[in-house]
Amino acid sequence: MIIVMQPHASAEQIAAVVSRVEGGGYRVHLSQGEERTIIGVIGDDRPIDRGQFEALDGVEKTVPILKPFKLASRDMHPAETLVPLDGLKVGGPKLAIIAGPCSVESRSQILETAAAVKEAGATALRGGAFKPRTSPYSFQGLGEEGLQLLAEARNLTGLPIVTEAMSEDQVKLVARYAAVIQIGARNMQNYALLNTVGQAGRPVLLKRGMMSTIEELLMSAEYVMAQGNGRVILCERGIRTFEKYTRNTTDINAVPVLKQLTHLPVVVDPSHSTGKWEYVIAVAKAAVAAGADGLIVEVHPHPTEALSDGGQSLKPEKFAQLVREVRRVAEAVDRTC
Amino acid sequence: MIIVMQPHASAEQIAAVVSRVEGGGYRVHLSQGEERTIIGVIGDDRPIDRGQFEALDGVEKTVPILKPFKLASRDMHPAETLVPLDGLKVGGPKLAIIAGPCSVESRSQILETAAAVKEAGATALRGGAFKPRTSPYSFQGLGEEGLQLLAEARNLTGLPIVTEAMSEDQVKLVARYAAVIQIGARNMQNYALLNTVGQAGRPVLLKRGMMSTIEELLMSAEYVMAQGNGRVILCERGIRTFEKYTRNTTDINAVPVLKQLTHLPVVVDPSHSTGKWEYVIAVAKAAVAAGADGLIVEVHPHPTEALSDGGQSLKPEKFAQLVREVRRVAEAVDRTC
Amino acid sequence: MIIVMQPHASAEQIAAVVSRVEGGGYRVHLSQGEERTIIGVIGDDRPIDRGQFEALDGVEKTVPILKPFKLASRDMHPAETLVPLDGLKVGGPKLAIIAGPCSVESRSQILETAAAVKEAGATALRGGAFKPRTSPYSFQGLGEEGLQLLAEARNLTGLPIVTEAMSEDQVKLVARYAAVIQIGARNMQNYALLNTVGQAGRPVLLKRGMMSTIEELLMSAEYVMAQGNGRVILCERGIRTFEKYTRNTTDINAVPVLKQLTHLPVVVDPSHSTGKWEYVIAVAKAAVAAGADGLIVEVHPHPTEALSDGGQSLKPEKFAQLVREVRRVAEAVDRTC
Amino acid sequence: MIIVMQPHASAEQIAAVVSRVEGGGYRVHLSQGEERTIIGVIGDDRPIDRGQFEALDGVEKTVPILKPFKLASRDMHPAETLVPLDGLKVGGPKLAIIAGPCSVESRSQILETAAAVKEAGATALRGGAFKPRTSPYSFQGLGEEGLQLLAEARNLTGLPIVTEAMSEDQVKLVARYAAVIQIGARNMQNYALLNTVGQAGRPVLLKRGMMSTIEELLMSAEYVMAQGNGRVILCERGIRTFEKYTRNTTDINAVPVLKQLTHLPVVVDPSHSTGKWEYVIAVAKAAVAAGADGLIVEVHPHPTEALSDGGQSLKPEKFAQLVREVRRVAEAVDRTC
Repeated sequence: MIIVMQPHASAEQIAAVVSRVEGGGYRVHLSQGEERTIIGVIGDDRPIDRGQFEALDGVEKTVPILKPFKLASRDMHPAETLVPLDGLKVGGPKLAIIAGPCSVESRSQILETAAAVKEAGATALRGGAFKPRTSPYSFQGLGEEGLQLLAEARNLTGLPIVTEAMSEDQVKLVARYAAVIQIGARNMQNYALLNTVGQAGRPVLLKRGMMSTIEELLMSAEYVMAQGNGRVILCERGIRTFEKYTRNTTDINAVPVLKQLTHLPVVVDPSHSTGKWEYVIAVAKAAVAAGADGLIVEVHPHPTEALSDGGQSLKPEKFAQLVREVRRVAEAVDRTC
Repeated sequence: MIIVMQPHASAEQIAAVVSRVEGGGYRVHLSQGEERTIIGVIGDDRPIDRGQFEALDGVEKTVPILKPFKLASRDMHPAETLVPLDGLKVGGPKLAIIAGPCSVESRSQILETAAAVKEAGATALRGGAFKPRTSPYSFQGLGEEGLQLLAEARNLTGLPIVTEAMSEDQVKLVARYAAVIQIGARNMQNYALLNTVGQAGRPVLLKRGMMSTIEELLMSAEYVMAQGNGRVILCERGIRTFEKYTRNTTDINAVPVLKQLTHLPVVVDPSHSTGKWEYVIAVAKAAVAAGADGLIVEVHPHPTEALSDGGQSLKPEKFAQLVREVRRVAEAVDRTC
Repeated sequence: MIIVMQPHASAEQIAAVVSRVEGGGYRVHLSQGEERTIIGVIGDDRPIDRGQFEALDGVEKTVPILKPFKLASRDMHPAETLVPLDGLKVGGPKLAIIAGPCSVESRSQILETAAAVKEAGATALRGGAFKPRTSPYSFQGLGEEGLQLLAEARNLTGLPIVTEAMSEDQVKLVARYAAVIQIGARNMQNYALLNTVGQAGRPVLLKRGMMSTIEELLMSAEYVMAQGNGRVILCERGIRTFEKYTRNTTDINAVPVLKQLTHLPVVVDPSHSTGKWEYVIAVAKAAVAAGADGLIVEVHPHPTEALSDGGQSLKPEKFAQLVREVRRVAEAVDRTC
Repeated sequence: MIIVMQPHASAEQIAAVVSRVEGGGYRVHLSQGEERTIIGVIGDDRPIDRGQFEALDGVEKTVPILKPFKLASRDMHPAETLVPLDGLKVGGPKLAIIAGPCSVESRSQILETAAAVKEAGATALRGGAFKPRTSPYSFQGLGEEGLQLLAEARNLTGLPIVTEAMSEDQVKLVARYAAVIQIGARNMQNYALLNTVGQAGRPVLLKRGMMSTIEELLMSAEYVMAQGNGRVILCERGIRTFEKYTRNTTDINAVPVLKQLTHLPVVVDPSHSTGKWEYVIAVAKAAVAAGADGLIVEVHPHPTEALSDGGQSLKPEKFAQLVREVRRVAEAVDRTC
């Protein structure tokens, strides 16, 4: 951490800050510029609360130097982490293609979708049994029945299940069915849930909050990892901006940034990140070209009947086209799918 | 809901949409413009999933007409809801001034703060026993011990307690101590928690997520109210924007907008919404001038020792100044404090 | 400026950076932390291009320390700058209340408005003769005829004119009529225009771009001031965020932030910053409570006939109510109007 | 346009709105819902000012139905517009690769860069002679001398020139040298400049403002086209969001959205849209995979000496790598470069 003093900070104020820093067990590195004194804090551990120092008289601001994440950082762990998803290793040369409906709605719907996405080339099945919905009056998911239907679809197709847990109570239940437990964007900073899922013995797919920074996403991964669960897949699913033509803005920059900052695999959800099915294929190809390790895509056999997210769901034949087109791009960046 | 067809939508496509709408039990109102056909959907209940219709061939977009919240809406309930906070009625002419430290850190800290804010004119005591922190390595709060210390401070000063529950498990515990249960910004869309707190028999202070729209805030209030708990206080605590000089951007517009849309009381948190103590008093006065029903302010006897949010905490004497200055503004808008 | 090296930067890379810094005529302050080496650059002048240093091998990032604005900075000029607006001194105890229509539309419209706002207590008349419109098909203003009508209104009422110049060509013309030349939000970073208006011999009202940071606003003021024109009034007029209920988000925090960073006066435009007339009075009061030196408000005698911004314009009687209510708040913060 | 009345709007209010609409020469389509009356306005021309109607008593809001752009709309002009850039047709199967330094700094710098990017496969040379800089103290470009050096580089390499005009005065001068005149992000809504460049007889590369919507970008293109110049290339160069790891957020969604809405070609600037050279290649490949018609990339022979944008400039060998990698992705989407 660096502490920048105000232009006219007095010698007493500077001395007080220095003494405060040293009192905390850190070494001080003082730098007297022409207009400002700058105090470097050496030997600092990450969880310094910078606010304490900002509250000292004469301090203009503090600047963090170290990245606040450790377990998730590539600095500490240069090699890629490969997260198992059934046979596939997410983060390796073969892309993870996770596909399925937003919500599990009925037996026929999920079985039909599972068969279709398997046929088209998917490597895992997604589908929500517990659904976080903005409105309390909207369909909230089938609950455990939905999980059982997912299991039936898995047994039929061999596709492992990726599905969401929304609360600590649900984690144990979901872990009985899911190969990977999904934490949704709205729960990215639900720390109680992150702690619970960190102990659940299952890989986690952690979606970036729609207005969370890349650093906050990594800090939330850090919560899961600090519980001993290092198998975290990060998911860019679009952030909220002023642009209204699409539901969210796909932060495509986040793909190379995350690949640089962390050893964890990164997938992209072009369905939520655009919100309109017409744009999903283009953004899926962009994600793979940018270096994503996989995709998570909403597919519904009859989007006009979907109880949620119909407007952004692909029909199975469109999904098959997505896989064909993505495969060509994947090969152009030395990946397969 | 209105459905806007694409410019060259065919008669068959239009007929298919009409039949779909009528099949859902709605009446259709067809409007043939020069460039577009527009289909009004009449008799619609709120939870229509618009995505289904957006997925129909020939549909360009759908436009919601009704507001999606009901219980929280002033249309349905024109009179102000007054939420009891001990003797005070939040939403009435007297402002609620809720003050205290970010976290409860020690017995002396909370007792000293409580006495000071009481003396200065606060009407309730805030302080976190369970703290949502971005980093798993930061101080996470004292837990139940913190609640007990809050109770001691309440017994000493008479100030009712406003404190946060972060998970369903904590709700029952917190309800034993708190006059009002706070739901933090990061949990505004933690629907499991909202449902739980809706059944806890305590008023709720619901903070707007830093990434949430006003409409989403009202939908989250709707979750609580749908469980039978109509005593919800809404809290504007700043939203995330591109501006970097302050930690968040106080959405002051939200105050008159909320007062128009809903009958629930609205308070403002100028500590989080600015992130720097120097700006807290100015924004507190602005909030009251704009029509807020109260303030929630961070106060710490020794900000430079604070385990969280030191940089945005007021010292007790600054808080006393805040109350004095706010009181004058309150009088200028026919309120008291 | 501070240069933060990557964790595993080599001694050669560090030496190369040091030599590059010294070669630029700066002194180096080296700080060897446990994980990072940090290089302080001392004696730096503001216009260092940090990108050069970020391009050096082994550099992780650079951090600016000095504020990039000088003439606009309160550090250099602690006393308030008072900008004359006819008799009034903007920045002094009496608030500037600048009111009038979005566009000058006709002789009767502007004369009627001018008389009404004068009567209600305005201190200056606003009104656009040149209008920046998103669509080339919208009304673009009356041009010089509009300026002449403004002059007639000024002669009738005594109110000085605040009006916009959109291009270098228009500056000279506008300067013949206006007491203050307005630079609109869309032109805040039109540097050719800023340079021209810096030489025009008239005070400038500089609106913050809807996408501009506070620092960028001050840098644009710096352009005007660097041409020798120190009479700049800054205007917060709302920034663009994800919130859709209002046209923009009033950055009320910007008021105390600007009052701290700069000696220039600050006014707020609650008409554009909300976009709906129903919210204008509440936000006007908030602005004054937060410390603004004035307001600029859209008033139209017949908003339903307005050729632009009808939805956010106050009728004269509502404006009179605004002045009455603002006056009470002004007194509560020791100002008048 | 659709006018939504307030829930309890009176029959008189509705009648007044209807009469107002009909008075404007439009037909009315009245739809009486259970909670709201909705008034469709038929035969509306684009430049209706919706504000007039929002100001009528009893009106809750207005909703636009037609897109406000005409000349730029694909509805009116389904076939791709191909914009000539020397021999290349931008918008056709072969990608435009526009490369060069941020600023022209010296004869050797621009000649060296031009030769290198030509060798690597660029199809045009970029480089600023007039530079919009946030600070008045930063390097502002070489002016006409810079244009002459660009011409020398063109003569040497055969690469056509793409360079920016910042003001109306500069347009004529720039048009003498440039194959394509660039309008920078900060000037996207400088309407005087758009009108001027619309008459300059040169294709225009129009950069999206960093906080402008896709619709606003198209409206600015409409300004140029309304002057008779239909040869406009649109450029996505990143938008401003809350994310701080990158300078801007590449709005990759904008590529398929624009390809759907307009017939104009779309290029992407991965240098500005990321702000760090490490991420440029990944985002360039993403842009092409998403369907972009070209790229505009900053290349500098010695980024550590660059007078602007050093941190986001590629060295020539990195640019050669970019072209090689992009070529493979281009082939995977049936394009060439």
